[in-house]
Amino acid sequence: MTTSPGRLYGLGIGPGDPELLTLKAHRILTSVPVIAYPISERGKSIVRAIVAEFIPDHCIELPLQFPFSIDRSSQPDYDLAAEQISQQLISGKDVAVLCEGEPMLYGTFMYLFDRLSGKFTIEIVPGISSITASAAMLGVPMTYRNDILTIIPATLDEETLRDRLTITDAAVIIKLGRHFTKVRTILTELDLLNRAHYIERSTQPQQKIIPISKVDPAAVPYWSLIVISNKNRVVSP
Amino acid sequence: MTTSPGRLYGLGIGPGDPELLTLKAHRILTSVPVIAYPISERGKSIVRAIVAEFIPDHCIELPLQFPFSIDRSSQPDYDLAAEQISQQLISGKDVAVLCEGEPMLYGTFMYLFDRLSGKFTIEIVPGISSITASAAMLGVPMTYRNDILTIIPATLDEETLRDRLTITDAAVIIKLGRHFTKVRTILTELDLLNRAHYIERSTQPQQKIIPISKVDPAAVPYWSLIVISNKNRVVSP
Repeated sequence: MTTSPGRLYGLGIGPGDPELLTLKAHRILTSVPVIAYPISERGKSIVRAIVAEFIPDHCIELPLQFPFSIDRSSQPDYDLAAEQISQQLISGKDVAVLCEGEPMLYGTFMYLFDRLSGKFTIEIVPGISSITASAAMLGVPMTYRNDILTIIPATLDEETLRDRLTITDAAVIIKLGRHFTKVRTILTELDLLNRAHYIERSTQPQQKIIPISKVDPAAVPYWSLIVISNKNRVVSP
Repeated sequence: MTTSPGRLYGLGIGPGDPELLTLKAHRILTSVPVIAYPISERGKSIVRAIVAEFIPDHCIELPLQFPFSIDRSSQPDYDLAAEQISQQLISGKDVAVLCEGEPMLYGTFMYLFDRLSGKFTIEIVPGISSITASAAMLGVPMTYRNDILTIIPATLDEETLRDRLTITDAAVIIKLGRHFTKVRTILTELDLLNRAHYIERSTQPQQKIIPISKVDPAAVPYWSLIVISNKNRVVSP
């Protein structure tokens, strides 16, 4: 007798507030036999901590160690993680990989998806991205009618940042971290400071909203971001 | 004795699957005394239909009639809707405005937000945008590491569409509707057809995923979209 392989879920967990889990992600998380999630070198998992209260006691946990800052797409760590997940799936168990935010947007899950797609049934459960959640927390409407929105990592070079910010209607600059000063200089040059809104750890208990001029460049976390509100915004009389 | 004014919620309802409501939106929707939502000229509300099963019997409902295709930001209809909501808030009742997808991204709620912000306490509850949900449904990873994502309405002119699609790493072209043929021609010119994925009514029971070459331009709904997958995508061996 052969066992049918299990199903793989890429489970969007949202930006940090456990109440921003979807009903669907909550249902799967509380019923799936195996969960997997990335852990840091010290063994900590941010995404597991977000949903800790929902994880059933009898659940099998598969912590996955990924490198952070090198070229991830070719890493043997991802091959190993994919192999660990495969073994559970082959044994007939469904596996949910916990993904911060939205699985298909700057997510580590995509490297597993690329390795396991076509071999197993995969279902992606969309989650709330910290990118859109930040606009909500800041109370900044982003795009009206025919506006273009550009999502741009602060890690890019100055020329690219300047060019793209010049032509877009609204933008979200992500992955600020140690690139904050470079970004602030560009925003000043482009006269965008009055439309720029800074937030860190969006929707989490430690969330901070700070005026750009008051931000300490030495204390900017990697996953902080700046929302550039819409240049066409018409505030009603 | 005076009554404290109620709180206004901009409630992100997600792209269409009722299970993609967040736990938070579900809690507020099932406990708030007044809900408001846009209706069409024929009196129908798409967003109300998505969450119909969760609306309590004793809830006061405030249907709001908005124009669809003219310059919305200056419309007296929005002034009227804001006034109707204000009256409920002033009477001390909390009001939740149901918003398809994410309230701050191409949402009609933003026109109410602009009118009521500063006058009442407003809380935005982020929702899953059909833009990110579509990538999940299509199984298309969008952005890795330092990639730029551009969200661009198909309603724009050919030159703008061509320019922005040329320089971005990944894109989502929204509001296709009657602009489908124009967009397909541009994608052909730019040799992007092999990275272009079409979807309509994402996460809804009538969801359709169709190869671009098989799409009937005469039958493309307004809220269909094309995800252009990442040009830097490295599929593992």
